[in-house]
Amino acid sequence: MHMPLKGLVVLDLTQIFNGPYATYMMAAAGAEIIKIEPHDGEHLRKRTIGKASWLPFAMLNAGKRSLKLDLKSVQGKQILLDLVEKADVLVENFAAGVMERLGLGEKVLKARNPRIIYACSTGYGTNGPYRDYPAMDLTVQAMSGVINATGFTDSPPVKAGPAVCDFMSGVHLYGAIVTALLDRERNGSTPTVEVSMMEATYFSLSSNLGMIHAAVPGAPARTGNRHGALVVCPYNVYPTADGYIAIIINHNEHWRALVTSFGHPELVDDARYKNNADRVKHMQEVDDMVASWTTPHKRADLFERLIAVTVPCAPVRDLHEVMNDPHLHQRGSLRWIEHPEYGRIAAPASPLRYNGEASLPERPSVPLGTDSRAILQERLGLSTQQLDDLESAGVI
Amino acid sequence: MHMPLKGLVVLDLTQIFNGPYATYMMAAAGAEIIKIEPHDGEHLRKRTIGKASWLPFAMLNAGKRSLKLDLKSVQGKQILLDLVEKADVLVENFAAGVMERLGLGEKVLKARNPRIIYACSTGYGTNGPYRDYPAMDLTVQAMSGVINATGFTDSPPVKAGPAVCDFMSGVHLYGAIVTALLDRERNGSTPTVEVSMMEATYFSLSSNLGMIHAAVPGAPARTGNRHGALVVCPYNVYPTADGYIAIIINHNEHWRALVTSFGHPELVDDARYKNNADRVKHMQEVDDMVASWTTPHKRADLFERLIAVTVPCAPVRDLHEVMNDPHLHQRGSLRWIEHPEYGRIAAPASPLRYNGEASLPERPSVPLGTDSRAILQERLGLSTQQLDDLESAGVI
Repeated sequence: MHMPLKGLVVLDLTQIFNGPYATYMMAAAGAEIIKIEPHDGEHLRKRTIGKASWLPFAMLNAGKRSLKLDLKSVQGKQILLDLVEKADVLVENFAAGVMERLGLGEKVLKARNPRIIYACSTGYGTNGPYRDYPAMDLTVQAMSGVINATGFTDSPPVKAGPAVCDFMSGVHLYGAIVTALLDRERNGSTPTVEVSMMEATYFSLSSNLGMIHAAVPGAPARTGNRHGALVVCPYNVYPTADGYIAIIINHNEHWRALVTSFGHPELVDDARYKNNADRVKHMQEVDDMVASWTTPHKRADLFERLIAVTVPCAPVRDLHEVMNDPHLHQRGSLRWIEHPEYGRIAAPASPLRYNGEASLPERPSVPLGTDSRAILQERLGLSTQQLDDLESAGVI
Repeated sequence: MHMPLKGLVVLDLTQIFNGPYATYMMAAAGAEIIKIEPHDGEHLRKRTIGKASWLPFAMLNAGKRSLKLDLKSVQGKQILLDLVEKADVLVENFAAGVMERLGLGEKVLKARNPRIIYACSTGYGTNGPYRDYPAMDLTVQAMSGVINATGFTDSPPVKAGPAVCDFMSGVHLYGAIVTALLDRERNGSTPTVEVSMMEATYFSLSSNLGMIHAAVPGAPARTGNRHGALVVCPYNVYPTADGYIAIIINHNEHWRALVTSFGHPELVDDARYKNNADRVKHMQEVDDMVASWTTPHKRADLFERLIAVTVPCAPVRDLHEVMNDPHLHQRGSLRWIEHPEYGRIAAPASPLRYNGEASLPERPSVPLGTDSRAILQERLGLSTQQLDDLESAGVI
């Protein structure tokens, strides 16, 4: 397995999805991740009392070592600073200002180790009027325009099903941290790294923003399953006898293939539908027509038939299908493992592939504090007696 | 402005959103991006004949140099290979196999420059049963489960408004490329980089996947504006007199603040709603109650009032509000610029911040081929006569 980040040490104070996703990808690339949590665990671990949070916690925390540490105690702070001396990165996604209030702001850490990269992710950034607004995926989806841009034109707005703001932010944070490490390696710089969830989501709305810039008259706030700027047709999700199929026609050859496949070759030269611009003008008509063709057929049959004539399309699959997807399992992107705490789970590899290999840390997520003693012994040389004392004092 | 990637040269064969987003962030970090397009331009540029694609093209292509090059011609291939000799990265997001068919596969490129990082992004990866399935944002949203997981429980599935699969993939691609560059710097390795759109989206569905793993009886395929695993309550988007507001109650203190703010302190100790687990059991009841409180008030008033008592919430904003957001403009994340081709636009900086600075390339996107002659002169030392000949021959 190719391990590009091997030898790097990361102090990981992150929680829930955003930060932990960044450090998961670092773990999968070979970095040593020391996940530092308070005595009651980070928020997502606390939620694992409910079974529905088992899988997310296991997905995001594979390959990380667990250190239980009370950062509010004097000794806890001391230990963190001692660890900082030999670490490459410290990353956190607390609300803005929390680290300073703990007395562990960047300046304090840099005084102990000028080479450390300090990285954080917040909802809205470390400055500006919204700095202190509460930021969870749902509130950032609301503020960033994702919710209002999602849903059917004549229905209320609805959030995107995936936690897009959390995960967009997490992967940007990964990219920024690695960039800073490269900068340190090439130029000797140790820039402070910052990613805001709202800013990390902005670009993904570019089609929708484009429609606003173009000031299209009567442009709807959301376009259902149609193109975000209503500039491609057909582009929609169509009903089938047993589900839905997504179809996009980018070129006239696709249009020819589609109409011919449904027995309507005469539509190829029909002036109303000849080019994409014509079809866009008759969007509702075209969509109704395509829906009338797809409705009687089974989703799988349609997919096979249309793919065979190179019409871009895809079945709308549910998450059972995705989790059991033969393609993902064959590529090693998903693997069934027996998790010691959570049972049989589909464990996903890092989406970042090097030399074609899927990288999934061998060690699953561990119970809180599993590695506390080992980490402090190895990295700070603490004795058994010292570790016992720290435990008795409730520091670790 | 901090420029961590200064001095790096990227040959950018990418198109539309996915690849161009990766190279936009590289441009904003100081890399020299040579965007190579065929004589009719990449797909998104072709779409700029419609105004709605102006802004997306400008957003994604700021700071890039434009080289028009016919890669199907013998001389065009020759020029690309000559450029490869002095480049650090070549990145493309064609369908799998296209570069090999052009005779420009990784082996050919590496023979000219063993130090170059070859990076690609595809819909489903460069191998496996789905390798050749057509992949656009819509089809990958369908295949990856995003569409089926988005929308109201009793309504048909609807795609996420933002192009999540394209942009998730683009930022993963950025992270993987920079990781490979760091690997080259630290370890002398030049790993091949690969990101698949479907795999890049998988983690963002972790809450929803968690509900499936937990085998919650009667779990719906999509949860509307509720939590993806239905484990937090209140967690929803509620109507107001003039729009919608998103509210999340993560802790009992938030619940106390919420009910007290609406004049119902007696609900704090009501056994039906005391803890999150209780409220989850009475989810519909709680949601109806909160909606009845929010409906009479204006969105802005509610937001101000609830934020003041630290109830996590946010207005559901439209994209006009987002594009004109005072916070984003104050932080330099958005800047009004006069684009030479597209007029006044809100230009977004890279979401990756170093030392607190927002980085936005000074040079806006340029017309196709603007830099063709300059690039070939500077990098390959071609004479005016040679450039004229290449132009006459339709190579550049």
